[in-house]
Amino acid sequence: MPDFHISEFEQRLDRAQRAMKAAQLDALMFTTEAEMRYFTGFRTLFWQSPTRPWFLLLPVAGAPIAIIPEIGATLMRSTWVDDIRTWSSPHPNDDGVSLLVEALEGRGSVGLMMGRESQLRMPLADYQAITNRVRSTEFVDATPLVQALRMVKSDAEIAYISTICGIASTAFDQANKLFFEGQALEQAFRAFKIALLEAGADDVPYLVGGAGPGGYGDVISPPGDKPLMAGDVLMLDIGATIAGYHCDFDRNFAFGHADDDAKQAYKTLYEATNAALAMARPGVKCNELYGCIAGELDGGVSNVGRYGHGLGLQLTEAPSLIGFDETVLEAGMVITLEPSMEVADGKIMVHEENILICDGPPKLLSKRAPDELPIL
Amino acid sequence: MPDFHISEFEQRLDRAQRAMKAAQLDALMFTTEAEMRYFTGFRTLFWQSPTRPWFLLLPVAGAPIAIIPEIGATLMRSTWVDDIRTWSSPHPNDDGVSLLVEALEGRGSVGLMMGRESQLRMPLADYQAITNRVRSTEFVDATPLVQALRMVKSDAEIAYISTICGIASTAFDQANKLFFEGQALEQAFRAFKIALLEAGADDVPYLVGGAGPGGYGDVISPPGDKPLMAGDVLMLDIGATIAGYHCDFDRNFAFGHADDDAKQAYKTLYEATNAALAMARPGVKCNELYGCIAGELDGGVSNVGRYGHGLGLQLTEAPSLIGFDETVLEAGMVITLEPSMEVADGKIMVHEENILICDGPPKLLSKRAPDELPIL
Repeated sequence: MPDFHISEFEQRLDRAQRAMKAAQLDALMFTTEAEMRYFTGFRTLFWQSPTRPWFLLLPVAGAPIAIIPEIGATLMRSTWVDDIRTWSSPHPNDDGVSLLVEALEGRGSVGLMMGRESQLRMPLADYQAITNRVRSTEFVDATPLVQALRMVKSDAEIAYISTICGIASTAFDQANKLFFEGQALEQAFRAFKIALLEAGADDVPYLVGGAGPGGYGDVISPPGDKPLMAGDVLMLDIGATIAGYHCDFDRNFAFGHADDDAKQAYKTLYEATNAALAMARPGVKCNELYGCIAGELDGGVSNVGRYGHGLGLQLTEAPSLIGFDETVLEAGMVITLEPSMEVADGKIMVHEENILICDGPPKLLSKRAPDELPIL
Repeated sequence: MPDFHISEFEQRLDRAQRAMKAAQLDALMFTTEAEMRYFTGFRTLFWQSPTRPWFLLLPVAGAPIAIIPEIGATLMRSTWVDDIRTWSSPHPNDDGVSLLVEALEGRGSVGLMMGRESQLRMPLADYQAITNRVRSTEFVDATPLVQALRMVKSDAEIAYISTICGIASTAFDQANKLFFEGQALEQAFRAFKIALLEAGADDVPYLVGGAGPGGYGDVISPPGDKPLMAGDVLMLDIGATIAGYHCDFDRNFAFGHADDDAKQAYKTLYEATNAALAMARPGVKCNELYGCIAGELDGGVSNVGRYGHGLGLQLTEAPSLIGFDETVLEAGMVITLEPSMEVADGKIMVHEENILICDGPPKLLSKRAPDELPIL
């Protein structure tokens, strides 16, 4: 069963084609999982295999063209895409290149994601071969154009994100049962993943965190076998999915007791989130929201580099809550609020909530964290 | 605790530097997760966020240089890498580019993965900016060089792969308890993921499969809510991890009864695997092993495109068991044997085992599948 009604994809294509027209592009070309899925509905974990490249061409008028390895044909035929061109991959010397060249023929200006947060998910040598073979085509950066489309979520997308945020909130509500002193951090992670699956998550692709007395050093590490101890602050940051849509928020817990610095840092981060919630409205710029949070933290800095970001098909998406991002918030955007600060030398704390920008106050998709550091 | 002793990384670097010398390269430059992890031990799920680029430079002599966002500094400092250069990322206009340019200065010939199975995990525009700024550096394709290094696993790598294959085998042994008629396929997937975590897997990044009367149409689809029915053949293909090392094998089960075509196809695939096991020895080429399997399948074709591949840090790695891959098998390589065939129009069946190439017969890392299609 497709994740969305066909009208959802028609609307996505329509918005993309309007943007292409405005930017005088003849087509958009994609090599990456998120964009292929956004425009076609083609959802598979098989992207984890780096072996085969996958291509999608969206013409400024007309239907999408999927140029993909044969192994994906059956799944692609289950989507709304009709124009599916396949080759037997891996191929000794032409892994989709000629099919792509043929499809690009006569298209003068083709948008490709080349900018911030993008990557080229195909061999660079093949990309260079293509640019050499279709000399009448100019590839131009379409990163901001595509990000602007994906940033504003449809009701159906919001429903998925809201569902997975609810599932993760339910799992966090069981913290008292799941986490305990003496438990190795990796066992805490494992228990939480199982709780998320049991609560209805399809997958738990992302779980990171840290634990330590009064704070943690790092927010991207895998867990070790060190046992949780009284006085530790445990942070778990979860990216679980449903229908391939992510939540991305964290929770902090102390074991037995917490020192005053940790309690105070928690409070500061909680209040910073409150201030952001009070300000997050359509028309406000991302860098203004960043400034609001930064002001609450009173110069406290961490190494995270920003105070929130978009999410959806990917764990993190544009925009960023950072000083240089002038994206104007719109109703339908889903973002994280993620203040972080250094508590002591080498120790940080991070809070994170997921919210939907609405006309009026934002809607919390994650269940709001407690206003004081919970003690387990 | 690091995943490997420091001597493991010293050996990996030593092998890389010998290969660089032989290829007259002054350095290797990496942008991708698997290679960063292979040479530094830097393991994090944070790569799922596309926001920040990460770079590693291995000089032909001397120590590795990690050029990474500040958010990764703490974790990178826990590895054996000492030369860590960071910047605050996301950055308004210089996301690591200047640091990378500086580190490339004076290096004439730099190997970059540009070929088969590779991708450029950084903005293409930034890559183009770098090539424009370091005009005295020539970037050359180092894909085969790097793949040749990673293909042959160390004892410590083999131990991780063997462990996760054992865990997945244990989980598959519980099939009778986990899967049942009337169960929605997505519930079967969820139950299997929980069983894998309970059996000791760190993560279950990859689980795909299919179910249908007498076979399945596709081997890369996510599960739907259709209930399993008598006569269905269920296939689950699992990529679980421990310390970031994968297993990748599948199992087939029938519910209640199986038709003769499905039983016969299972037998044919089982025998094809046996033939490959009898032939897989150091000195044999991948395309010879491919030919052996193809011969057993007697012209049966599927859309998979190859009959096996390497695995380890990634779910799939070089080499490929395919007609054009002339890689010579060596002791220490870990590969899948993955014969597949069309059972009926639009229906395929796939078998998969994970093996270690040894002097003498290969070692099965996955517990050998039963010789007849198991009926649940």
